Amino acid sequence: MAAAYSDKRFSLIKENLAEVLNEEIIKKVLDEGRHPKIYWGTATTGRPHCGYFVPAIKIAQFLAAGCDVTILLADIHGFLDNLKAPLELVAQRAEFYRHIITAMLQAVGVSTEKLRVVLGSSYQKSPEYVMDVYKMASIISEHDAKKAGAEVVKQTDNAPLSGLLYPILQVLDEQYLDCDAQFGGMDQRKLFTAAKEWLPKLGYRERAHLLNPMVPGLHGGKMSSSDPDSKIDLLDSPETVAKKIKKAHAAPQVVEENGLLAFIEFVVLPAARLRGSGEFRVERERGGLETLVYTDIEKIREDYRNDVLTPQLLKPAITRELNALLAPIQEAFQASKEWQEIADKAYPPPSKKEKKVKNKGTRYPGGGKEQPETKETELPVRPNGETPN
Amino acid sequence: MAAAYSDKRFSLIKENLAEVLNEEIIKKVLDEGRHPKIYWGTATTGRPHCGYFVPAIKIAQFLAAGCDVTILLADIHGFLDNLKAPLELVAQRAEFYRHIITAMLQAVGVSTEKLRVVLGSSYQKSPEYVMDVYKMASIISEHDAKKAGAEVVKQTDNAPLSGLLYPILQVLDEQYLDCDAQFGGMDQRKLFTAAKEWLPKLGYRERAHLLNPMVPGLHGGKMSSSDPDSKIDLLDSPETVAKKIKKAHAAPQVVEENGLLAFIEFVVLPAARLRGSGEFRVERERGGLETLVYTDIEKIREDYRNDVLTPQLLKPAITRELNALLAPIQEAFQASKEWQEIADKAYPPPSKKEKKVKNKGTRYPGGGKEQPETKETELPVRPNGETPN
Repeated sequence: MAAAYSDKRFSLIKENLAEVLNEEIIKKVLDEGRHPKIYWGTATTGRPHCGYFVPAIKIAQFLAAGCDVTILLADIHGFLDNLKAPLELVAQRAEFYRHIITAMLQAVGVSTEKLRVVLGSSYQKSPEYVMDVYKMASIISEHDAKKAGAEVVKQTDNAPLSGLLYPILQVLDEQYLDCDAQFGGMDQRKLFTAAKEWLPKLGYRERAHLLNPMVPGLHGGKMSSSDPDSKIDLLDSPETVAKKIKKAHAAPQVVEENGLLAFIEFVVLPAARLRGSGEFRVERERGGLETLVYTDIEKIREDYRNDVLTPQLLKPAITRELNALLAPIQEAFQASKEWQEIADKAYPPPSKKEKKVKNKGTRYPGGGKEQPETKETELPVRPNGETPN
Repeated sequence: MAAAYSDKRFSLIKENLAEVLNEEIIKKVLDEGRHPKIYWGTATTGRPHCGYFVPAIKIAQFLAAGCDVTILLADIHGFLDNLKAPLELVAQRAEFYRHIITAMLQAVGVSTEKLRVVLGSSYQKSPEYVMDVYKMASIISEHDAKKAGAEVVKQTDNAPLSGLLYPILQVLDEQYLDCDAQFGGMDQRKLFTAAKEWLPKLGYRERAHLLNPMVPGLHGGKMSSSDPDSKIDLLDSPETVAKKIKKAHAAPQVVEENGLLAFIEFVVLPAARLRGSGEFRVERERGGLETLVYTDIEKIREDYRNDVLTPQLLKPAITRELNALLAPIQEAFQASKEWQEIADKAYPPPSKKEKKVKNKGTRYPGGGKEQPETKETELPVRPNGETPN
């Protein structure tokens, strides 16, 4: 009975993941009836958009499976990525992230009681942490640091030194956030395997790693940096959401790299399961046909491949689902004067003097499969580090 | 009159240096009748030997010229270089360095009232410093960090990341130790020019740099790591000193890379000038000839070249001068129970279990001209970082 319950929790933790490293670490905690501690980091450089639902849904599942979840708001990384932006702006952004991520989790109906949100600056400048950065730097080779960051850090000769430093910080964060497992996208894999190897060198224990697949964005694999519609903001109005999804690229019958199907698989269906029904409904009123009701992605894929489910049918259904997810977030935003003030301070309208920040490509999640231009960015290795656009 | 006084001070500051970068920074302070603030750093990894007289004499001259001198005891670097050695040992070594360097300066008769000795760990773990390390790492490229450390840090693919981090620390130390100029050996030149370039990027002012030439050791250019006599300890007895100098390699009539002549030029003569007489005397009793009295190195070189001054004549004279310099240091050591206890703790007799530390080659000062093996070491970039032997 206890074993069956433990298995059920573990199955929810693993759902939709691409890979789990050292799963025995998590199984042991579950078998002992305890709460696995999972950490996920995000650099507070940009502004969370709908792609953030992909990790948020996994975090919601972790919480639903009785895990203690820590979200690291990597504000120091955010600051370093925008050296010219005052620290205050980054601090405001971190607060914005805190509000919106919490609201996203509440939107899918999970309790955020066991969610802890930590600012990187609250411990990454402490003497103990810093000594460990110095120590780790003295036992890890340039070569290994470069390898660990290969997927997420620019790898040219002109790359800033911070690109080699950040893997060390991210590895130490596992220890300092006291987690059993770190969660991240597949682009973090080399970094995660480095963490397994590096932490024991300082006498710290090895952690498990939970890897989400790289999920194409709602607009298909490639997102255009010059197209303001390529991202859906979490505070976009229902009309704007409808307009943006209408413009989304989706070839009929092609299920590979299909951002709409991916959104259903990694967001809509798991969110529906968390909220109870587990259903995704596609109405066909116009054609006078009965509503399609799905509970698993395979059937959806099959119908899409056969053109039973066309992009024209899918888009309004996804628009309805996404707006349903956004509604409670936007209600929470409207109800919080504090959050509204933070939003104004965190994302002030660009002044004429401000140099346009070049969008250097996006990262997991929701940013489409990794594009070559991702490597061009000087962002830290944190997932989700995006420049505002 | 004031200008003449300023010139005299500047001339003493520059004496025997190979190069001064941005000397106008120092001249300005002198012209305003103020005290130039000069910093010199040393990693507390090994044990100071007689080669340390070379920088110590320059520091004595800085003090005599009315400078405020800060000696940085880079204990964090010392610790990182010996990860397996407990922090406590490194702390004891730093204390030993503090005692012996102060005693060396007092031995040449300068007041150490304006000498400040600072432990690296007292500020290199502070939040402000650490943020600056992160910031600097995000604007300096791997390539530039590598270039800056090229002469003092191992440059292979297997080199630890700390080798790229240390140039950043050493540059920031100029700001955090609030100096007008950093002093070091010519092997630091690339690092010093990097400092000139990097500090303004964080909004800090550019410093001057005082560069000592690379001075061959008392035993000639190359020091053997397997020969325990190749270094003269500052606490060696007069007999031991005599024995070691007797064994020193010195080809008759060859003045190039001659460690004995270098010791006279960079230690004996300046020390004699600081103490008043300015003379170096070579007795020739055995030959029934009159004593040779020198006040400048050119005449000494000339006589050596012509074999008027033979190694056999020179060695006893240098032995006498060195023992005279060591006598007050050893007296201070004998008089201080505290220092003696520190010495026991800082350099405990090697236990049987202890793995023999391979001498990875020596560094400036007194370690001979830089040898290829210097690059093999994983020591931090600090000058004088030597492994104990």
